[in-house]
Amino acid sequence: MIFVIKVGGNVIDNPELLQRFLKNFAAVPGKKILIHGGGKIATRIGDKLGIESRYVNGRRITDAETIDVVTMVYGGLVNKQLVAKLQANGCNAIGLTGADANIIPAVKRPVKEIDYGFAGDISTVQAAPLKALLEAGLTPVFAPLTHDGKGQMLNTNADTIASSLATALSAYYEVRLIYCFEKKGVLHDANNDDAVINLIDRQIYQELLEDKVLTDGILPKLENAFAAIESGVKEVLIGHADDVLSNTSDTVAGTLIR
Amino acid sequence: MIFVIKVGGNVIDNPELLQRFLKNFAAVPGKKILIHGGGKIATRIGDKLGIESRYVNGRRITDAETIDVVTMVYGGLVNKQLVAKLQANGCNAIGLTGADANIIPAVKRPVKEIDYGFAGDISTVQAAPLKALLEAGLTPVFAPLTHDGKGQMLNTNADTIASSLATALSAYYEVRLIYCFEKKGVLHDANNDDAVINLIDRQIYQELLEDKVLTDGILPKLENAFAAIESGVKEVLIGHADDVLSNTSDTVAGTLIR
Repeated sequence: MIFVIKVGGNVIDNPELLQRFLKNFAAVPGKKILIHGGGKIATRIGDKLGIESRYVNGRRITDAETIDVVTMVYGGLVNKQLVAKLQANGCNAIGLTGADANIIPAVKRPVKEIDYGFAGDISTVQAAPLKALLEAGLTPVFAPLTHDGKGQMLNTNADTIASSLATALSAYYEVRLIYCFEKKGVLHDANNDDAVINLIDRQIYQELLEDKVLTDGILPKLENAFAAIESGVKEVLIGHADDVLSNTSDTVAGTLIR
Repeated sequence: MIFVIKVGGNVIDNPELLQRFLKNFAAVPGKKILIHGGGKIATRIGDKLGIESRYVNGRRITDAETIDVVTMVYGGLVNKQLVAKLQANGCNAIGLTGADANIIPAVKRPVKEIDYGFAGDISTVQAAPLKALLEAGLTPVFAPLTHDGKGQMLNTNADTIASSLATALSAYYEVRLIYCFEKKGVLHDANNDDAVINLIDRQIYQELLEDKVLTDGILPKLENAFAAIESGVKEVLIGHADDVLSNTSDTVAGTLIR
């Protein structure tokens, strides 16, 4: 079993939560991959540099100045600080973007109604170099960046990178894909943080959709999860950064999707 | 033969020279490693962020804000742009710092007369993970950064990283260490850019020192070169970024040190 673990920006932005998360991540035995979001630091540094952050439908518009900022901040500052801290926790991390070893080639998103700028839609995942790193005992840590193969870095959603890597690796390994965030899992009741649904399969998902239980924030994560499972990923786990890394298949905190 | 190639900040800062250099680098056959300096962009971005750059004896003083800037700029922006451009030239580059795969552990420089801040003196080079990357067909591209093993990134001179990597790899390979910069090589006459000394050995070096032919800028490079050769590196080549990558052992542009 290999663990492909996405940690969100809210965890990155919270030093105490991040420290606990990295300790727990380092303690996960066997092969594993970390994919990190950016957090608010790119926006803070962009603001200081006089570069405005713009979003449409929750997606950042990545103009020429902004791709430089996210390449610096996600690919440099956040990624290397995570690597250094994982090394301090005894985890032999190697920080990467999708350009490194050409693991995630992408295409610049075509301009339709909205011009997202230097946003990358993943073309494919090259599993062979990734597998070589894993077999060498290394733990890849991915920033949410890809490249177009023509010399341009591109900004790519970290959830999407996580599910794409998980899917590609499922040709070689049993894969558990884990989304760590600041909630305990998928909730029955958005106002009760403890009302976690422990297991969701296709049938339960349909019932939840019909009952309109799910919030807008969780829907894309569940759609990603089922897409990954249909493409070969064994299971997807969604839950709080403090809980989900110590899970075994028998004792589940968070929401397991099968 | 493996080529360990350092490219200086003056090349990084010059888009046309850089483009030619990367094309030539990508065309070098067989195993190779690139180590890049930072160029002036870290100072420019630091200035915009209101962080003052301070130097003593030509070495940057790396305070807490500055290590974040150089981690972003060298480890993120410069490193990933080089990787993306090498990929576009058909070279399967993987961008790294010394923290990645724990290849270059270092110690924070002890405070004596000068407090250099978060400057790292290399402890050792872990050649095994580096060799694994090379054997997997990848071309490592190093930013001038190391780490202390306790979670802190450190700023380390790129020339020193290049000679340390070259020395460590000489246990496994015949190594040619190449310093690319904006001069044609070591000069007989500082005022004549074409007065290149083609070959320097220990005896010639002593004579050049006695004749006071060498400039202050070239002395540390030559000292590094002879130290590397005494530690097992086969030969060191110093010259212009446009010339030295197309060299074979028989046709030498630049200065060859043996």
